[in-house]
Amino acid sequence: VISSGPARAGVPSSRQGPIALLCAGGALPFAVAEAMRLAGRQALIVAIAGIADPGLDRLGAHWLALGQLGKLFALLRRENCAGVVLVGAMQRPTLRSMRIDAIGWSYLFDFLRNVRRSDDGMLRGMLRWFEDQGFPVLSAGEVAPELLAPEGRIGQLAAPSEALAAAAQGFACLDAISPFDVGQALVSFGERIVAIEGAEGTDGLIDRIAELRRLGRLPRSGRDGLLLKGTKIGQSLKVDLPTIGPRTIERAAKAGLAGVVVEAGRVLVIEGQAVVAAADAAGLFLFGLKRDRSQ
Amino acid sequence: VISSGPARAGVPSSRQGPIALLCAGGALPFAVAEAMRLAGRQALIVAIAGIADPGLDRLGAHWLALGQLGKLFALLRRENCAGVVLVGAMQRPTLRSMRIDAIGWSYLFDFLRNVRRSDDGMLRGMLRWFEDQGFPVLSAGEVAPELLAPEGRIGQLAAPSEALAAAAQGFACLDAISPFDVGQALVSFGERIVAIEGAEGTDGLIDRIAELRRLGRLPRSGRDGLLLKGTKIGQSLKVDLPTIGPRTIERAAKAGLAGVVVEAGRVLVIEGQAVVAAADAAGLFLFGLKRDRSQ
Repeated sequence: VISSGPARAGVPSSRQGPIALLCAGGALPFAVAEAMRLAGRQALIVAIAGIADPGLDRLGAHWLALGQLGKLFALLRRENCAGVVLVGAMQRPTLRSMRIDAIGWSYLFDFLRNVRRSDDGMLRGMLRWFEDQGFPVLSAGEVAPELLAPEGRIGQLAAPSEALAAAAQGFACLDAISPFDVGQALVSFGERIVAIEGAEGTDGLIDRIAELRRLGRLPRSGRDGLLLKGTKIGQSLKVDLPTIGPRTIERAAKAGLAGVVVEAGRVLVIEGQAVVAAADAAGLFLFGLKRDRSQ
Repeated sequence: VISSGPARAGVPSSRQGPIALLCAGGALPFAVAEAMRLAGRQALIVAIAGIADPGLDRLGAHWLALGQLGKLFALLRRENCAGVVLVGAMQRPTLRSMRIDAIGWSYLFDFLRNVRRSDDGMLRGMLRWFEDQGFPVLSAGEVAPELLAPEGRIGQLAAPSEALAAAAQGFACLDAISPFDVGQALVSFGERIVAIEGAEGTDGLIDRIAELRRLGRLPRSGRDGLLLKGTKIGQSLKVDLPTIGPRTIERAAKAGLAGVVVEAGRVLVIEGQAVVAAADAAGLFLFGLKRDRSQ
């Protein structure tokens, strides 16, 4: 149970202004902003100081520290924002970097409790704050559906049927650990799951495979192994959608993996053309697997 | 379904000779042999060439390659062995190192298929061969019960109640991945599970924690984090019992972990006195948690 925080600002208003992109780290904020621009959707870029990429300045970003919730809500009201998207990689922030303002303090206890719990808890908690202030929270997939992984073969290379069988088993394993909020990805070699993502993230997971090969714990040569990435059962689809980009593919290729399977419609693909080009160049298959589940 | 291999040698005989310790790598064979010696139980040491520790020579080991099953069965019959224990760390062997003999060849197809599947499959398959030849397979815990982790506090330091709560949650996570045969250990920080063991093994898992701390992905300072190790649901308790030793504790201490919780009665503790001494010296708690389940 998450406390609903300070006094509610009344019922959600039907504002008509831009969608506010509240940007954390990494390349995803750029991809979402670009997709919205190409589709002619209005965006207000708000970057989290110390976490977001400084390059967001080029997109006219408003910079705020994570604790400046008073300023943020004022900005969103002034711009008549129709909704908020939380986008990009969060880090567990240091207290000092948060620059907590008067309204921010009133949320701090709630925030810290959620930080202690898990990534999901942290993000869900923040999400509630915006909705309590009358700003609907949308998912990156809603404002930039162009980024969602399509169903079926994505690059040139077809996924072997054994890989799709391994993917089904791997997704079942990820489902099994969903309640424990550990990770959203794993790597299997044939029918054998060899690594589950933890706090190291997907890049660290892939690097681990390279290391296991180097140590002879996995076959040293030959393109083998499957990276699998998808959503957790019951996770909010509004925040923390799994993401891949060209770097993911390059890393997977370097680790000798044979291919990547992502959950279709629920994984964001950053710089899709570069992703496909990287997969084709390295000889990796890339596949979007539709998962049938209600959540 | 595992094929039962070549013709059965009839019903299990009630032989009265020594227990054959079929020794793979690592320190466990020494610990089991020593525990049996101290308890006055007769053992025949059979070491797998290229995998077992050469130091087993000191215990008068008979050396055989993994594929020399004909020779092995003949030895077991000659010595009138009452049973067989498979003990020590298996590696996926290279074909050349196996030196497959005439009888060995007849098992090869079965073996290779199991190697492809998983550790469990490989071990379960081998286990069946011995039983088909009339040699009951016993667990290391049956012939050396002194090595099984006791219930409750093991070292000087008591385990905080939050750690035991985290352990209960962690074991539930390990149970959830049991059907996927991934690993037998994990590390949690408070309520957050940060790493699940995969092909890297427990040493690699602990090293990963040290690396995550170095990278700032986990708190850099302070003794924190819990290593958890237990059996998989439905795993054969006759082979591949989880094991810890003094090196495990030293590694955990170096990675800044606060303690270790193992499944009581189902985890082997090698060099128990050294384990306790290492935990006490480093200020780690060490606890055996009884798990209530029928298998």
